[in-house]
Amino acid sequence: MAKELRVGIIGYGFMGRTHSNAYCKVSHFFDVPFKPSLKVICGLVEAEAKAFADKWGYASHTTDWKKVVEDPAIDIVDICVPNNMHAQIAIAAAKAGKAIICEKPLALNPAQGEEMVAAVEKAGVPNLVSFNYRRVPAVTLAKRIIDEGRLGRIFHYRANFLQDWTISAEVPQGGVGTWRLDVAAAGSGVTGDLLAHCIDTALWHNGPITSVSALTETFVKQRKHVETGKVQAVGIDDACTFICRFGNGSLGNFESTRYARGHKALYTFEINGEKASIAWDLHDLHRLKWFDHKDEGALRGWRSIHVTDGGGAHPYMDKWWVPGLQIGYEHSFVHQLADFLEGMAQKKPVSPTFREALATQYVCDAVLTSGKSGRWEKVKGA
Amino acid sequence: MAKELRVGIIGYGFMGRTHSNAYCKVSHFFDVPFKPSLKVICGLVEAEAKAFADKWGYASHTTDWKKVVEDPAIDIVDICVPNNMHAQIAIAAAKAGKAIICEKPLALNPAQGEEMVAAVEKAGVPNLVSFNYRRVPAVTLAKRIIDEGRLGRIFHYRANFLQDWTISAEVPQGGVGTWRLDVAAAGSGVTGDLLAHCIDTALWHNGPITSVSALTETFVKQRKHVETGKVQAVGIDDACTFICRFGNGSLGNFESTRYARGHKALYTFEINGEKASIAWDLHDLHRLKWFDHKDEGALRGWRSIHVTDGGGAHPYMDKWWVPGLQIGYEHSFVHQLADFLEGMAQKKPVSPTFREALATQYVCDAVLTSGKSGRWEKVKGA
Amino acid sequence: MAKELRVGIIGYGFMGRTHSNAYCKVSHFFDVPFKPSLKVICGLVEAEAKAFADKWGYASHTTDWKKVVEDPAIDIVDICVPNNMHAQIAIAAAKAGKAIICEKPLALNPAQGEEMVAAVEKAGVPNLVSFNYRRVPAVTLAKRIIDEGRLGRIFHYRANFLQDWTISAEVPQGGVGTWRLDVAAAGSGVTGDLLAHCIDTALWHNGPITSVSALTETFVKQRKHVETGKVQAVGIDDACTFICRFGNGSLGNFESTRYARGHKALYTFEINGEKASIAWDLHDLHRLKWFDHKDEGALRGWRSIHVTDGGGAHPYMDKWWVPGLQIGYEHSFVHQLADFLEGMAQKKPVSPTFREALATQYVCDAVLTSGKSGRWEKVKGA
Amino acid sequence: MAKELRVGIIGYGFMGRTHSNAYCKVSHFFDVPFKPSLKVICGLVEAEAKAFADKWGYASHTTDWKKVVEDPAIDIVDICVPNNMHAQIAIAAAKAGKAIICEKPLALNPAQGEEMVAAVEKAGVPNLVSFNYRRVPAVTLAKRIIDEGRLGRIFHYRANFLQDWTISAEVPQGGVGTWRLDVAAAGSGVTGDLLAHCIDTALWHNGPITSVSALTETFVKQRKHVETGKVQAVGIDDACTFICRFGNGSLGNFESTRYARGHKALYTFEINGEKASIAWDLHDLHRLKWFDHKDEGALRGWRSIHVTDGGGAHPYMDKWWVPGLQIGYEHSFVHQLADFLEGMAQKKPVSPTFREALATQYVCDAVLTSGKSGRWEKVKGA
Repeated sequence: MAKELRVGIIGYGFMGRTHSNAYCKVSHFFDVPFKPSLKVICGLVEAEAKAFADKWGYASHTTDWKKVVEDPAIDIVDICVPNNMHAQIAIAAAKAGKAIICEKPLALNPAQGEEMVAAVEKAGVPNLVSFNYRRVPAVTLAKRIIDEGRLGRIFHYRANFLQDWTISAEVPQGGVGTWRLDVAAAGSGVTGDLLAHCIDTALWHNGPITSVSALTETFVKQRKHVETGKVQAVGIDDACTFICRFGNGSLGNFESTRYARGHKALYTFEINGEKASIAWDLHDLHRLKWFDHKDEGALRGWRSIHVTDGGGAHPYMDKWWVPGLQIGYEHSFVHQLADFLEGMAQKKPVSPTFREALATQYVCDAVLTSGKSGRWEKVKGA
Repeated sequence: MAKELRVGIIGYGFMGRTHSNAYCKVSHFFDVPFKPSLKVICGLVEAEAKAFADKWGYASHTTDWKKVVEDPAIDIVDICVPNNMHAQIAIAAAKAGKAIICEKPLALNPAQGEEMVAAVEKAGVPNLVSFNYRRVPAVTLAKRIIDEGRLGRIFHYRANFLQDWTISAEVPQGGVGTWRLDVAAAGSGVTGDLLAHCIDTALWHNGPITSVSALTETFVKQRKHVETGKVQAVGIDDACTFICRFGNGSLGNFESTRYARGHKALYTFEINGEKASIAWDLHDLHRLKWFDHKDEGALRGWRSIHVTDGGGAHPYMDKWWVPGLQIGYEHSFVHQLADFLEGMAQKKPVSPTFREALATQYVCDAVLTSGKSGRWEKVKGA
Repeated sequence: MAKELRVGIIGYGFMGRTHSNAYCKVSHFFDVPFKPSLKVICGLVEAEAKAFADKWGYASHTTDWKKVVEDPAIDIVDICVPNNMHAQIAIAAAKAGKAIICEKPLALNPAQGEEMVAAVEKAGVPNLVSFNYRRVPAVTLAKRIIDEGRLGRIFHYRANFLQDWTISAEVPQGGVGTWRLDVAAAGSGVTGDLLAHCIDTALWHNGPITSVSALTETFVKQRKHVETGKVQAVGIDDACTFICRFGNGSLGNFESTRYARGHKALYTFEINGEKASIAWDLHDLHRLKWFDHKDEGALRGWRSIHVTDGGGAHPYMDKWWVPGLQIGYEHSFVHQLADFLEGMAQKKPVSPTFREALATQYVCDAVLTSGKSGRWEKVKGA
Repeated sequence: MAKELRVGIIGYGFMGRTHSNAYCKVSHFFDVPFKPSLKVICGLVEAEAKAFADKWGYASHTTDWKKVVEDPAIDIVDICVPNNMHAQIAIAAAKAGKAIICEKPLALNPAQGEEMVAAVEKAGVPNLVSFNYRRVPAVTLAKRIIDEGRLGRIFHYRANFLQDWTISAEVPQGGVGTWRLDVAAAGSGVTGDLLAHCIDTALWHNGPITSVSALTETFVKQRKHVETGKVQAVGIDDACTFICRFGNGSLGNFESTRYARGHKALYTFEINGEKASIAWDLHDLHRLKWFDHKDEGALRGWRSIHVTDGGGAHPYMDKWWVPGLQIGYEHSFVHQLADFLEGMAQKKPVSPTFREALATQYVCDAVLTSGKSGRWEKVKGA
């Protein structure tokens, strides 16, 4: 019988919802060693926290994150707040001996990230950063294919994350839905928000990135700030593109923007190896594109694999429906949680840990530095 | 505050899971007037019913469907068992005054269906048949587009539902996962299982079908029966294709099979109107294809609409995530339930009612009859 | 050294252009045993015939097709006129001992077709009907795949040919660009014009069609006739859909229309076999879709084969450019001509001969008959 | 009546064939002011030159390019030889007063290119560099859309040109089919061969590139040389990716490689503007992808425009077949030639002239320099 896992989530925004949903669903579909119990939701506005608690079935709510962290009746602290709050909450939770799931990116900068890693490792608590796209079944399948050596030597890795939601100069910075445009809350723009996903997957799939040359741009220079009500300079990167070298000798090409008209959340990657290639995109997340050079010549072609085979062929899909029936975005969080709970039971780290997420932070930092310096920058630790 | 809705589900198979999931999720995402409470799950094997109850949080379990139907502490009876059980359970539930959701197809045959309609209408209970694909947002959007008159006069409606899971002669008939191959349990093969979906959508989108000419085939003539252990004649249709006339003057073309190698659940439809066309398929259910002849000549083309706009543009999508992030198959059941609960509160019928599903049953019946007679057959009531 | 082949083309319309282009190009790309020499173009209006001759480099022009047929200095007569002229020209050309290429469909009806077959077979002249789509490389590759037994037992064959150019009631019947709407000139509508292509490919790929049930419709009942200037009843089928049985036990489903808004020349086919499936469409004619069930489970998917491999893997493509570079519609005529010339040199028939095209005519006739009778009709000779 | 244009082509390889084909076809489809007459083909091996002349109908052949250039009976010199021969032939042809079409890239380096520009401008001869992809109808349509201001402010331009034909270390350098791997003949690798196309289109579509940061790699360091028979160091770039700034403030991202397994000639570009976006790829060259933000919200989506409308809507397509029927790669050369002949008649320069191609050469040079220097490099003249 699964043991109860008492959950406190800090942040009831978009990520608070995706995480709450995962806790509600995970035991319906996975044989997990812990049965999550929603104990407390924490957020800035009490009425909203209460409404959220009612809607999702939380036993209580609070506006004080410290109460969550310090509560002995909480087993896991799940951090779903803006980036500038990650470090202090995570460090406090680690000290309190909680298991921790933290939204990405890990921190505002490498220094914070290093402190966070030190804290969780000193405390010896289970920890995970929510780079959820690793656990879209097609992306997980890509990793399995790579690990099986099916690609051979890798020549190229390219990834994009394209959106278009901030093209209008009327979109403000700061506030609930738009804190990602406020450098104080977010630390950076597309680099920390979107490229961090691309980089996390790339490091997982293709190993360390050693050096980068980046180009960043802020197309809309000033936006009204929701909290001050004033038009203020925009401190984030609206767009960032970089070229890089991987430790394995392959070349990388990455781009992210919120100014690609027509694309909403188009995270794409493609890997070209000596023997085969893989491609994927988030707009059709249930498909993996696969080209295998060893297929017979006249019949070679890119395969569109519908990653919905519940017969055991495709990662996680035996838990869901029947072949041909898609799952969606939210399921990546369920998979992540199922893996994390299993890791907790087995006392094994589950990727990406804070330490692994710090490697992504280092790449992001090198990218932002290069964007400013106009020079190739080495990546710390790689 | 939402009133409690006490739920009893009969059948813990594939559909028992999709419905249970919908009851668990609906109030997290929709502001529903009733808050579902999982009271009892009913199924054939007690240990399995118990395990299901534990996994999904049902308060109790039983192997006797009559206990569910007669229990005064149950508000809604949800029928997720094979087709040959629908009529008796639904009629009993109606007599007991329960709200009823019944899996499709409505019944084994029109006679049963008529009895069921009479029962629910006499009892005045809320009733719905779970043709869930109507509530895939792209399919709902198609209906809205049609209702807005954007297609003009309709010339053609074509739909397919292609699978490949019964090609092997080793697949048995009867039993838990394979009752759909047993004519006694299923009533028919692809016609009731798959074409019924296509027909339901077609009637909804395009109005009555008046006459049909069909071709049916059973490719594998004998299969071992799970319950008897003997090789027996297969009584279902493995494949069925038909041509038809709609009441509005348009021509229809439908095909379904479980022998289309490479397709798992490829439900597709396309509608060609004087002014515009629509196409959709279940393998990429979050997309709608749209061609509008009034677009400027040089720039005309089929649009691939990513039906994920949470800003209010796309049906149901304001309840989920952010633009670009897909939902999946299971969500159609959540939408269906949300609408049904809303209808119950407002004391309004919610489509497709038993009566509406009977119209689909009539078409299926005409199709099966035509497949045998080799003649054009008129559709009852159309 | 290639011998000269003296060419006379009758008809300078759309098909006159595609055939002229083939004669001009064939020896530049293929090592053909005959070098075509454009001797005479024949057409209704002398000034137009002359202009065509100048543009394409014909040595002469005429308005009298009999002069072409009777001219001893002509080796091959190529018939590119409306369907109602095919029989008399072909029969005369056969009597005169000419090699003959005739545009499809073979004739207005089976009786004419039988006479034509008798004439060419009695005369022993090389003869071919221009079902050019057989020689789109992807379609030819499909045939090769089928012949290699890679599909196993065939269950389903489906094909569509969808256009939208006659939706407007203002499109006239009769005349140069619109004779296809005039039953006197065309014999039938989409059945002879479009379905004939689908049927020719189907017979080639999948063997005889034995019986059919069809539905035909004329959406626009009256159109102005270009020649009479009067509004007259439309005698052709605007749309035709039929279901059928093949001799090999598989089921067929065909549809054609000129009322499918958004589709210009969307000829599609799909074949589902026990072991594999194939699909193709004319809007991306350089691609073949291929699903092979023997591919490893987790990596199975529909392949999109870019049929442009000049290294010998793909039919005809070694004659053109380099891998990745498409050819287009017109090349199917060049391939057809290259094969026909090779057959002439080797004194071997080249498919589809008049006799083979007569089999297609029989299917078309059964389809049109069924459309009127409302009954299943047997196909002559199958 | 069109005047004769006496053509001499130097080089009978792949490009010699594409250009010969264009001269043969152009007057069949376009009303051109000059009628090309194939006078002489020139190439290294006499027997091959003779065979080519026979196949294509050239009046004569030679192995000495100077004879072509100096022949008073030649009006146009068409240069289809490796890059290291372009300058001397073009300069001599200019001095001899010939019209000149030269294959891309213009030259081995900017210094050569500048000499060539000076020569043709001094001589006042019509001149064009064969960046043929500009005249794929979809690419030409993209230019028209941009010029009409439909995209608004441009934020991003990205282009790739991906191939996979040199992955094997067994592919040699030098010689007929592989001179592109020999730095002495080619000047550079993918930069001059493939990125030059991407850059030409980009400059045309989006204006000057001002600065670049590039990453180049040679994956296979040594290859056997066909001419020397020895294994020698490879001097070309196997892969090159660069980021850049355009003069209009947009960001660019370009990548090319011959090591992208599964891609044969995948030239792609995408342009993101404030109001709309465009995308295209060479593997489906007859389609243009178009997203227009001003489309109604619920129905917004990427359009796939089948650029085959002969009714005048799509560039060049009124010259070919009927809507829905594709043209291919070779037609871009026919269009280029038709435009060049028209320009000659009107005594107007036709883009891209040598001078315009020099701008592309400058970007290539900056890219190659940056690949070596590891620094951002300014582009000359921009």
